[in-house]
Amino acid sequence: VKPTLTDIMRSAIEDNLKQVVYSALKDSAPELCHMMAYHMGWEGEGRGLDAQGKRIRPLLVTLSTAAAGGDWRKALPFATAVELIHNFSLIHDDIQDQSTTRRGRPTVWVKWGQALGINAGDTMFTIAHLAAINGDTWLSQDVRLRGVRIIDQVCVALTNGQYLDISYEKRRDLTEADYWPMVTGKTAALLAGCTELGALAAQVSEDRQKTFHSFGLALGLAFQVQDDWLGLWGDPQITGKSSASDLVAGKKTLPVLLGIQANGAFARRWAAGPIAAEEAEDLAETLKVEGVQVAVESTVEKLTREALTHLRVAVVENAASRALQEMAVQLIRRQN
Amino acid sequence: VKPTLTDIMRSAIEDNLKQVVYSALKDSAPELCHMMAYHMGWEGEGRGLDAQGKRIRPLLVTLSTAAAGGDWRKALPFATAVELIHNFSLIHDDIQDQSTTRRGRPTVWVKWGQALGINAGDTMFTIAHLAAINGDTWLSQDVRLRGVRIIDQVCVALTNGQYLDISYEKRRDLTEADYWPMVTGKTAALLAGCTELGALAAQVSEDRQKTFHSFGLALGLAFQVQDDWLGLWGDPQITGKSSASDLVAGKKTLPVLLGIQANGAFARRWAAGPIAAEEAEDLAETLKVEGVQVAVESTVEKLTREALTHLRVAVVENAASRALQEMAVQLIRRQN
Repeated sequence: VKPTLTDIMRSAIEDNLKQVVYSALKDSAPELCHMMAYHMGWEGEGRGLDAQGKRIRPLLVTLSTAAAGGDWRKALPFATAVELIHNFSLIHDDIQDQSTTRRGRPTVWVKWGQALGINAGDTMFTIAHLAAINGDTWLSQDVRLRGVRIIDQVCVALTNGQYLDISYEKRRDLTEADYWPMVTGKTAALLAGCTELGALAAQVSEDRQKTFHSFGLALGLAFQVQDDWLGLWGDPQITGKSSASDLVAGKKTLPVLLGIQANGAFARRWAAGPIAAEEAEDLAETLKVEGVQVAVESTVEKLTREALTHLRVAVVENAASRALQEMAVQLIRRQN
Repeated sequence: VKPTLTDIMRSAIEDNLKQVVYSALKDSAPELCHMMAYHMGWEGEGRGLDAQGKRIRPLLVTLSTAAAGGDWRKALPFATAVELIHNFSLIHDDIQDQSTTRRGRPTVWVKWGQALGINAGDTMFTIAHLAAINGDTWLSQDVRLRGVRIIDQVCVALTNGQYLDISYEKRRDLTEADYWPMVTGKTAALLAGCTELGALAAQVSEDRQKTFHSFGLALGLAFQVQDDWLGLWGDPQITGKSSASDLVAGKKTLPVLLGIQANGAFARRWAAGPIAAEEAEDLAETLKVEGVQVAVESTVEKLTREALTHLRVAVVENAASRALQEMAVQLIRRQN
């Protein structure tokens, strides 16, 4: 079978990721390097494709560059940087949420302890910057500086989204208005950064870079709302999580906030305190009856249309733009 | 009283720090901004000069620029960046060590919890990068890119030093050879980065930039070994810590490692297990008798001579180079 453009990109991205991580650390800090390589899925028990994740974010970068008419190989330093930023945030997230497994393996902090886990995240963050800074061969100084600035602005949004998410945990007075800044920071800002960085590497006009940004932002929001949908109404056989698991975890998802706003049976039950696993499925059904499922689905539809409209305006017609559109639709329509 | 050059720099640095932190966060993330401002000593209970720290690292940057014959104001973006890097590492250190107070106030994680504390450190790290990247007005693209690369290489060293420090906690088989990479990463790399960044901002030759780097590196090592000396033999009335507190904490300081190497009474006691507060002073005396204090003092002397030799080669004779030499000597000779 002939490999697709996306396959070729995925393989180049993986090579570049390894090159950056190993060249920055292998000689100077071999043990720290092993922690990075473990988290990235390259070393240790359970290593391999399943442990590596889907590399969605770097693919968004390179596909955007090619869909803008540029040479996607030039975007590899940015692609590598965003994937490392994503993984730095996962390492710290797992400590903040006290999650014990990720992609089927023990999390970094479970294996090495919390102190070394925090430190491993900091290292990953540092290397992400080095990846973008060191792209000498492919990108001009101006493009690299602009790229690093985009990455840092994404990180400010990311940490603010994380701040909101953590500080929402103990609050029961939230509304839909509190939802959008949180998920924009936590999820959509990074996806918007990816598509914008791709356009920057292609050196299209600033207007078109902004359109790519808008595409990624709407895509990221649609992706997150769909994630919320799956956490409530997804098929446990496909998602691999127990049904309506987000309700039991007490997450402030869009369905929950809309349910509170509906001020019916769900809102009364939610106000009464934590939800047990046995009642979760019934409550998910209550939300359906109260019209929340339909509202969430129409939000996903609206955001998807918005994303695809921006995409059509931004790209040139080629194999990459078709692959990018396909990937966007798959991300939103996914069932797990 | 006419303010000294160092006073003028200190005030400009504080202004720039505030400008960078507030402009990056105040509108987009006001609560996260308050956490930063609290840690920096500007807001919250106990704010003020004592809570701000001495700003040694940014002063090393600006003094180095001026001592190299350059305009120190151009180095402010780098000065601000290194101080924010230092403070990011303090926020995470406090979590890793579970320290409850810093500069006489509750640490960030004690006030906001561990999850938000990790996140605040990540935010500080991000803003440090933005500070260096955004110095458009003063520095060329080339100088900024080189500067950010130096900062990231320092951070790799910093996280590796932290890795070694944490992983040494449970080890009893360490020798002097294990000490130097740890303190080079934890302390000296950042000071070397400061003096190098100062020289870079002055745009002197790469050779002279390297000499500034060597000055900062030797200064940082001397500073750390003196810190170890104080932790064992410092006057509790002046250091504010109980006597020989480092022994009780089980820290792998240079005196401890030399004491193990001496293979006498101290080494036997150390091998037997944790040291109680009541026996710490006697053991510090044992180390003196075994010749460790003299060895540590001659190490400080050697490193100080090395630092001052590099400094003399690197600088031009002016008010800044005199202030820089004075600051270096004060840092090493300090009693607390």
